[in-house]
Order: sequence, then structure tokens, then C-alpha cells
Amino acid sequence: MMIQCRLKAGRAIGCLMLTVCCGEFTRGADWAPIHKTLISVEENIRVRDWRYQTTTPDGHTISVVKSVLHGGKQEGVDIVTVDNGRLTVVVIPTRGMSILGVTMGEVRLGWDSPVREVVHPSLINLHDRGGLGWLDGFNEWLVRCGLEFAGHPGTDTFRDNTGVPSEQDLTLHGKIGNIPASEVTFRIDRFPPYRMHIMGRVNERSFYGAALQLDTELSITPGSKTLSLDDKISNRGAAAQEYEIIYHANFGPPLLENGASMVAAVRRVQPMNNEAVKSLPNFSRFTGPTAGRKEHVFLIQPLSDPKGDTTVLLQNADKTLGCSMHYSLEALPFLTLWTNFASRRSGYVVGIEPGTNYPFNRRVERGAGRLQQLGAGESKHFKLSYTLHDDPAEIEKISSAIKDLGEGFKPEIVHHPPVME
Amino acid sequence: MMIQCRLKAGRAIGCLMLTVCCGEFTRGADWAPIHKTLISVEENIRVRDWRYQTTTPDGHTISVVKSVLHGGKQEGVDIVTVDNGRLTVVVIPTRGMSILGVTMGEVRLGWDSPVREVVHPSLINLHDRGGLGWLDGFNEWLVRCGLEFAGHPGTDTFRDNTGVPSEQDLTLHGKIGNIPASEVTFRIDRFPPYRMHIMGRVNERSFYGAALQLDTELSITPGSKTLSLDDKISNRGAAAQEYEIIYHANFGPPLLENGASMVAAVRRVQPMNNEAVKSLPNFSRFTGPTAGRKEHVFLIQPLSDPKGDTTVLLQNADKTLGCSMHYSLEALPFLTLWTNFASRRSGYVVGIEPGTNYPFNRRVERGAGRLQQLGAGESKHFKLSYTLHDDPAEIEKISSAIKDLGEGFKPEIVHHPPVME
Amino acid sequence: MMIQCRLKAGRAIGCLMLTVCCGEFTRGADWAPIHKTLISVEENIRVRDWRYQTTTPDGHTISVVKSVLHGGKQEGVDIVTVDNGRLTVVVIPTRGMSILGVTMGEVRLGWDSPVREVVHPSLINLHDRGGLGWLDGFNEWLVRCGLEFAGHPGTDTFRDNTGVPSEQDLTLHGKIGNIPASEVTFRIDRFPPYRMHIMGRVNERSFYGAALQLDTELSITPGSKTLSLDDKISNRGAAAQEYEIIYHANFGPPLLENGASMVAAVRRVQPMNNEAVKSLPNFSRFTGPTAGRKEHVFLIQPLSDPKGDTTVLLQNADKTLGCSMHYSLEALPFLTLWTNFASRRSGYVVGIEPGTNYPFNRRVERGAGRLQQLGAGESKHFKLSYTLHDDPAEIEKISSAIKDLGEGFKPEIVHHPPVME
Repeated sequence: MMIQCRLKAGRAIGCLMLTVCCGEFTRGADWAPIHKTLISVEENIRVRDWRYQTTTPDGHTISVVKSVLHGGKQEGVDIVTVDNGRLTVVVIPTRGMSILGVTMGEVRLGWDSPVREVVHPSLINLHDRGGLGWLDGFNEWLVRCGLEFAGHPGTDTFRDNTGVPSEQDLTLHGKIGNIPASEVTFRIDRFPPYRMHIMGRVNERSFYGAALQLDTELSITPGSKTLSLDDKISNRGAAAQEYEIIYHANFGPPLLENGASMVAAVRRVQPMNNEAVKSLPNFSRFTGPTAGRKEHVFLIQPLSDPKGDTTVLLQNADKTLGCSMHYSLEALPFLTLWTNFASRRSGYVVGIEPGTNYPFNRRVERGAGRLQQLGAGESKHFKLSYTLHDDPAEIEKISSAIKDLGEGFKPEIVHHPPVME
Repeated sequence: MMIQCRLKAGRAIGCLMLTVCCGEFTRGADWAPIHKTLISVEENIRVRDWRYQTTTPDGHTISVVKSVLHGGKQEGVDIVTVDNGRLTVVVIPTRGMSILGVTMGEVRLGWDSPVREVVHPSLINLHDRGGLGWLDGFNEWLVRCGLEFAGHPGTDTFRDNTGVPSEQDLTLHGKIGNIPASEVTFRIDRFPPYRMHIMGRVNERSFYGAALQLDTELSITPGSKTLSLDDKISNRGAAAQEYEIIYHANFGPPLLENGASMVAAVRRVQPMNNEAVKSLPNFSRFTGPTAGRKEHVFLIQPLSDPKGDTTVLLQNADKTLGCSMHYSLEALPFLTLWTNFASRRSGYVVGIEPGTNYPFNRRVERGAGRLQQLGAGESKHFKLSYTLHDDPAEIEKISSAIKDLGEGFKPEIVHHPPVME
Repeated sequence: MMIQCRLKAGRAIGCLMLTVCCGEFTRGADWAPIHKTLISVEENIRVRDWRYQTTTPDGHTISVVKSVLHGGKQEGVDIVTVDNGRLTVVVIPTRGMSILGVTMGEVRLGWDSPVREVVHPSLINLHDRGGLGWLDGFNEWLVRCGLEFAGHPGTDTFRDNTGVPSEQDLTLHGKIGNIPASEVTFRIDRFPPYRMHIMGRVNERSFYGAALQLDTELSITPGSKTLSLDDKISNRGAAAQEYEIIYHANFGPPLLENGASMVAAVRRVQPMNNEAVKSLPNFSRFTGPTAGRKEHVFLIQPLSDPKGDTTVLLQNADKTLGCSMHYSLEALPFLTLWTNFASRRSGYVVGIEPGTNYPFNRRVERGAGRLQQLGAGESKHFKLSYTLHDDPAEIEKISSAIKDLGEGFKPEIVHHPPVME
């Protein structure tokens, strides 16, 4: 059987032509929930190729495919493709459970990076290019930055867990996106709505160093247009630890185009870099690809709804396609908007990035009071949901609700980047 | 067939659930020696999964299992598990023939590192964290530090093999523990006592650089409580080369506990770091895990017996469990005692580390006259044996013998760390 | 079936003992051209072991073998071995389509590096040893240096593609030799002379970085003594980019020996380093291995023939064995001659290296006006052919032709290395 998962409009990345030789199939009458270990250090398991398809009692034909990528820098990379009958989601266990892309008909979450392969972490040197080596593998729709550090490269001077003054050369956006997951399982709930779950554990642990553990659960309901992330970061060490996480979600066409826009209820906005000062007046309205255009980055504090959550919408120019994200501001108070409207060949992309902090070097975040800690043995949850939209009425409704939330509030607009020491 | 090798008291690391599909079995009557190539660059061989079990003519059922680890950072790591009917020894060809652990009933050589996977060297960057990247994979019972350099990170200024002044950024404990073995074979002697041997060759060679070769032979007699290492380091280059080797053997519970102790005949002892000054009076008596406790390190010159050897014993608090090591002082004159009695989550461990030198940066060792050289084509042997003890009388006997050796000798106790330039 | 490909006189590197389980064989009458994808990111293919043998309608028995190397640092490295009935060529897709070696009876293109395995790029850290990490895998007959930079390590200060002043720590000889090929195919022409082709694509691409693509086609005619390279470097980015390429071809015995020589029509020659000043008068006449001898490097501008090409011949002492290379000076105007006549154990080798520039740091090449650029979307071809010689008359004929070209021209001999700022 051949399966083709096409994640890109123009070309196939990680395009998957899979001959299934060991699939499992169940049909309506025989329907039973499944709980499958795909990767496990504890059980010494790595499933290479596996396919499962079923029809739920309420009539949704859903599937999950475990496969391995081949060729170039992606040789040996594990991927898991989940289809809930409406959305196709591609998860990369080998790259810290990043999400390569999501598609629903014409709607696509993802972008066209100059990096065209799903690069195996063994071929990434995070210290390359003065700490920018992370960019050699950067092409996912959603990649987590973190956990020990999540921002810009450079030296951080700090007191380590035992109180000793220490110095560390941080690398861009941290390590978690380049650590292979240790435990990956897939399961379907026994009872309606028969929700599908991919669970992954990624260990960012060393000796005399980080002792952080990410447990992520991505889930979707069959037939739904929404995917949910329930992440837990745990301090498995013996002392309090700093941590950072930024959900770096990246969008290219068709959601991004000239006239596309972000709708958010904004409490405060400030340019992160000097380039961004120019486009501050229209920071949430996006332009087409422009040769030589530099990145413009904005630092945003969103307003929260009565439950403490916020919603951010990305919509195309004529408001027919979109993606809305909904998450808790208590956990992720700072939103970075990264616009990189260079020519398509250089990467035409907008990043909408909720985080525990902004992506300055950890040294800066600590100084600004934005750096979080976890006590020994403590955990913290991060819940986000992303909904794909192809219905103008639905987009209009969400847009209105966001505008209602900001109604009457005058955002604080800071006209210059933060002053760095 | 399912085999489970449990190396840790509290949890399984590299826990092996192996379905044997290509094993070889022989029974008493058919007993014949075996000589099996498991990995070979010369013959282009990598045996992934293989199991051999036999009963020797004198009635010992022994086995060897070659397997591959899966998941997380240990995907693809080769391990060899040898069982002599009494001891189980797990060797890691992919990590320079390090020994992950040894078990004999209640006795266990090994420790619980925060690093919980057997990390593949392709995911280690030795230059990370200012040269401390080695720590990202540090969890073995016995790992060799070396061969070009074996100590602390930092810049070494030296004259290279051709006499040219040169500068190099050394990384912690060298490269040999993160180089996959090129040749690995297993054999059993034809004649009594039917000794089992694992031979491994690890090349630390480059162009315009190191030309060092490690040939290690680990052997055990069926039914014995002792494992022996016979290592040979060869200079395969065209000029004399410096080299260093430290046998970094690490012990956690049950051998290490509050009241456990090391028994050694000591000629001289000196704290390596300021922290260690505090515990110098009781340097050989160990305490329980203590949150926030830093490493205390001691530099020891043992006394030799008439044959030029020395014996060092580690025993638990009530002297019912222990491990004694016996080796030649001529080859390994310097003993480093590394006590890291932090909380269990941070790594509660004592390292007893015979070496050609101490683990200061190579620059320091050269200056202190402790750095060894091998002429072009020359080799040097390093023989050590480790015996596991679960018999109090046996422990008492060894302890007495060591004390007898030191009887009447007043050790030189230096109260402050060496002065560094 | 066992195949043994012996590439070295003295020992086997990557010696291949392959049990063919999935070969394809065709015989004369059934002869048909083949087009086989061996590795493909686009199609998610990696053929591990495959063998094809055929006899062409004109009677040449030719073959191609795809295999995987095992053991040590070469575990998992893909190689392709092509035999045209006369030459055996071993290509390494995993190492950027480098050519490990070529043999024809007694003639061998290749050398005996202290690096004895075909090292997987995942085990190479280019930044090791102050940017000399490339040397840890250096043992090919022909390795390309490039593409973003191809020369000596060190900091380069430059304006990036968007005009921003930027700084980068370059590493020796660039990245392309340690990037696994993304697409590799093999084909045979349908019509005479039934030429055999190996095509490979290697991507040197990042985000905010290089966007260079190498498409290489190696081809040989059945029964011929010549192999041809037709390489294309393309700028896949949105702005002009600098690039460099040096064809680092390395020769040891039997072509290199005391009294061996290079024959070239020289317009200008200059020592690159002070050591080379000593041997400038006899720079093209080679000596035997000498313990402690440093590298002597020469910078050469060859004369072109009326077509704009040049020919360089390497011949052994009695002019019975040789290799001639023929290429376009327009594309590769600068020739580096690297003589490393150290003892055999250190690497006794001569490198004859046509390039777009010399192997100084890119900063130096830019300053000297030798650095090339490619506009957005532009490509440039590099064609070279190498012929193996075992016929003294043939060698004499080529030698005479080269001498005729230089006849009457007095080369400019510069007696000191270029002055560096």
C-alpha cells in the first residue's frame, strides 16, 4: 500500500512513500481502542514501520502511521503521521516531538524553509555559526525552544544550582528541538469522542547540568479541526532550576500572504529590533515576500479573557483561511511575533510564539525578571490548542470575539526596542 | 525468548528485552570453544542481535548476548552482555568499550546518573558547556579517560609531534569514551578454566593528530567473582606521543552508603580542590547523599606490595558487600578519589580512579612531570582486576592484607590543593 | 556471493565483503539500460545492499554495487562501487560524494591516511582542534573542499547576503565533504558507448545561511581508463552568494615515490608557506617519505591550451605509472600543490588541487580578489577528467604535450609566500 503525505503546496518535504508490511487494520464492528508503544528506552523498543487504521463507532476513519525518513541529512529520522479523518498531523520524535506540519484540505500549517530535509540531530552542531547551528534544521511548523534556555546565543553569567558563579555559551533556541524522544506512545480513547493521543517524553538531562523533562501529549478528536497540546515540564533534579519555553509556530502560504493579518487582543507591544520600528504602526498586518527584507520582531503582552486565556488568529488576506490558537496567559504570558517577509527562497514566514519569556539571551530575560524557575520535583503544564479554519463565517466569529476582548482597551505601544546593557 | 538484564537497583537503564531470533546454543556434550566476530571494520561486520549460551565441561552455564539499544539518545548503541554464571557484565562497544555495569546478586558495580540513557557518541558534542560535553553521556560504571588527554578542559600550549608550538582546547576526560570500537570479538578458551574473553579495539586517530590505539581484553572465568582488564595502548604514529589514561570506575549504592569506606595503603594524599580540604581527615570514609554537597576530590599515591601492585577495597558500612581492585602501580601510579555525595537525583557516587596521572589539564600534568610518552610503534599494558565481594570474611581478609601493607608507614598528608600557576 | 574490493596496496580500508541478496543480473542478449535510484529524499528511498552486473552489447562486463560499511566510526556509511571492466571507483554518498579511491591493476588513486575508516559525518565535529576537525575523516582520494568556504580555519569578517556586517568562524575545507548526499542515482546509457553515470546531489543549505547545491555526475565508459566529473554548483538562494571549491585529489604510493614528479605547464608558482621555500627549486619533483618532514605547499597558476584547458600529469619515478588530469582553467584557475612527504605512518601524500581559489582563509581570498560569486538562481559547471596510466608510451606522450604547451614560456617564480595582513 502506498501512502503519500504531502505537506507542502509546492513540493514534498519528507514526502512519504510507504509500503506497509506490518499494518494493523480494524473495522467498525471490531473496533477496539489501541495503545501502542512506538519508541521506548524503558522497553528497548523502536518500531520502524507500522500502520494502524480504524473506523470509530461514530463513523470516522482514522489512522496513524509510523515511518522512517531516508536520504541526505534525514536518514533514520522517525516520524509519526496522524490522520483524524480531517487533519493530517506529522510529528517528529527524533526532533524533540516537533510538529513538521498540519494539513486540512487547502489549509496548511507550515512553511517553506530553505532547509528542505528533516535533519537528524546527530548532524546538527548547535555551536556552529557562533551558536546559530539550530538554524541548520529549522523548518518545522511548530518547534519548542528550550528548556534550559530558549533565546539568543551568547554568554550567560549566572549562579548554578549549587550557588557557584558559572558561565555558559548558550546556543540559539536551546536543545530540546534536537533531542530524540525517549518514549513515544499512541492511543485512542475507548469511549466517545474516541480521542487520539500521541504522547512523547524528551529528556534534557546531563550530569552537573539540566535535569528537565518534557512530557507532551498531542491529541485530536476524530473529525475535529482542532489539535491540542498538553505539555508538562518537570524538574527531575535535586534543586530549583531555571527554564524557558517558547512555542515557535511558523506559517507560510497560504495563510501568510500580502494582506494576511494577525488578530490579537494586545495589552502592550514593542519592537524587539530596530528593523521592526519601521513596521510597528502596522505590525499585525503582513506584506508579501520582499527580497532583502530583514526580520522584524515584536514583543507582545496579550490581554486575557476572564478565564485567563487568550486567543490569537492568523487569517489570510480575504479571511477565508486561518488558524487560531488558544492558550493560558498564566503559563505563557509573553508573545513574540517574528515576521520574516524575505523572498520565498530565503524563507517567507511569520512566527507566532507564545512563551514563558521573550527570546533574548537568558541573561537578559533573567535581568528583566521574566525567567521562571521550577523547584526540585516540580512540574508545570502548558496547554495550547490550534484550530484550522476554512470557513469565513467561523473566522469572522473568532475575529470578532478577539476584538470584543480588546474593546475599549488602549494598548501600550512602545516605540523603541528595549535598551540592552 | 525474553531476556531481561537489570543493572540497577531502582530502575532499569538499558534494560534489555530481547527476542532472540538467531541465537546459537550448545550443550555439555557438544561443548566446543567459540570465536565470534561481533563488529569489524576489517571484515565489514556488525552483528546486531546474537545470543550464545553453553555449559562448560566443568558445569558452568555461561552466555553472551549481543544486542542493540533503542529509543532516545541510545538508538543504535551496541552492547554486549556477558554472564559467567555468577557475574553479569555489560560492555558498550559504541562507547569505547566502556563497562556499563556489573552485577552479582545483591552486589552491583555502577551508579544512578542523572544521564539515564546510554548515549550514542553522534549526539555528544565534547565542546559543549565549555568543554564539559562529556558529562552528557556519563553514566558508566567504568569509563576510560584518555587517550590524547584525560583531564580537565582548557587550553593546552605544547609542542606537537613535529616540534611546532601548538595550542589545543582540550575537553573533559578526552575522546576515547565516545569513540565506537572498530573490532570486537568474543571467544572462550578451549581448555580449563574455559575463560571468556571480549576483545575490543578503539582507534583514537586523526590526520596531523593522535595516532593512539586501545586494545582491550576483558576476561572472566566461568563461576568466578573477578573480571580482568588487560589493556594495551599503542602509538601507531611515526613520532613519540604523549598519552594519558584514567580508569574512572564509579560506584553508587549499595556499595556506597553512609559509613561505606575505601581501604587503601596510602603513601601520600592531598586534596585536589578546596572543597576537599574539609573532608581530608576522613577522606576514605564516606557519607550519605547530601543536597548541595559539592565534589571533594583527593590525589593519592598508593603504596605498592613487593610485586609492585596495589589493592584498593570499597566496602559498604557493615562490610558485607564490597569491590576490590588490584593493579600495577608501575603502570598506574596515581589514584584519584572523586567523591560526589550530592543528593541521589544529582548523582550520589564515588569514583576510584587509577591513572597514569591526575585529572588536571594536560598542561598541568606535563608541568608536574606526570605526563607519559610512548615512542613510535611502542605499546604499554595496563592490567587491572576487579573482584565483587558478598562474603564478610573475604572482605575482612582483603582489608587486613591492605592494612598490613601500610603497617608502620606514616602517609604524607598534604593539607592544601596543589598551587596552580 | 562474496565481493572483495581492495583499495589499498598494503591494507584494506572499507574492505567490502558483501553477501548479495538482492542483486540484479542481466546478460548480453537481454541487455537493457538501467536507471536506479539508490538514495532519495524526494522519494524517501535508501537502498542498502544492491548489486547490478551486465555485459554491454560491445562485450564489456560492468557492475555497480551499493553497500553499507560497518564497524567503528564507519557504521552506516553508504558506498557505491562502480566497475567499468577496467577501473573500480568507490564513491561515498554519505561523505558528500567524495571518491574513496580508484584502482586499475597496479595503478591506484588514493593514499594511506592515518584515518583508516570512512568516518560518518555524524561523528565529525568540524570545530574540533580549533577548526581542524575535518582532518578526523580525511582519507579520500578525491574530496571537494567548499562550498561556502574551502580553505583554512579562522574568523572571516564580511558582509552577509543582506549587506549586514557579519563574522563567522570558518572551519578547515568547509562542510560539503561531510554532508550526506540527498539524491543518488545510477544509470547506463542506452546507446554506445553505454556510458555509466553516478549522479549525486548534496545540499549545503541553512536558514539565514548558505543556499548552495552541488550536483555531481561521475561517468565512465566501459573499458575506458578515464573517469569524468561534471559538477554543477547552484545558488538556490535569493541573493548573490560567494562560494569556493577545491578538488583535493590525493596520491600516495605507487604513483608517489622518491623521484615521482608532476608535469604541468606553469605560468606562475609561489610557495604558500615558509617550509615550501626550501623545496621551491624542485617543487615538482617528489621525494620519499621522511620522518618529521613538514608540509610544503605551492600556489600555481597553470598555462592554458588553446581551448582554455590545462593538463597535469603525476608520474612515478620510472614513468611507468601515472595519472593525468584535464580540466578547464576558466572554471578552476588556481592550482594548489600540497606535498606532505612525512613518514608513511603520518601520511605520505601529494595533493594536486585545482580550485576556484587557493586554500587560504576566505577572508584572504576575498582580499586577493580570487573569491567567486554566483547570482541568485545561477549555476556554474566544473568539468574534470582523470586518466589512469600504466603504459610508458602513453605517459611519455602526455608529458611531451604538456611540455610543448609550456615551451618557450618562462614561468614567474615568486620566492616567498604571500604577505598576510
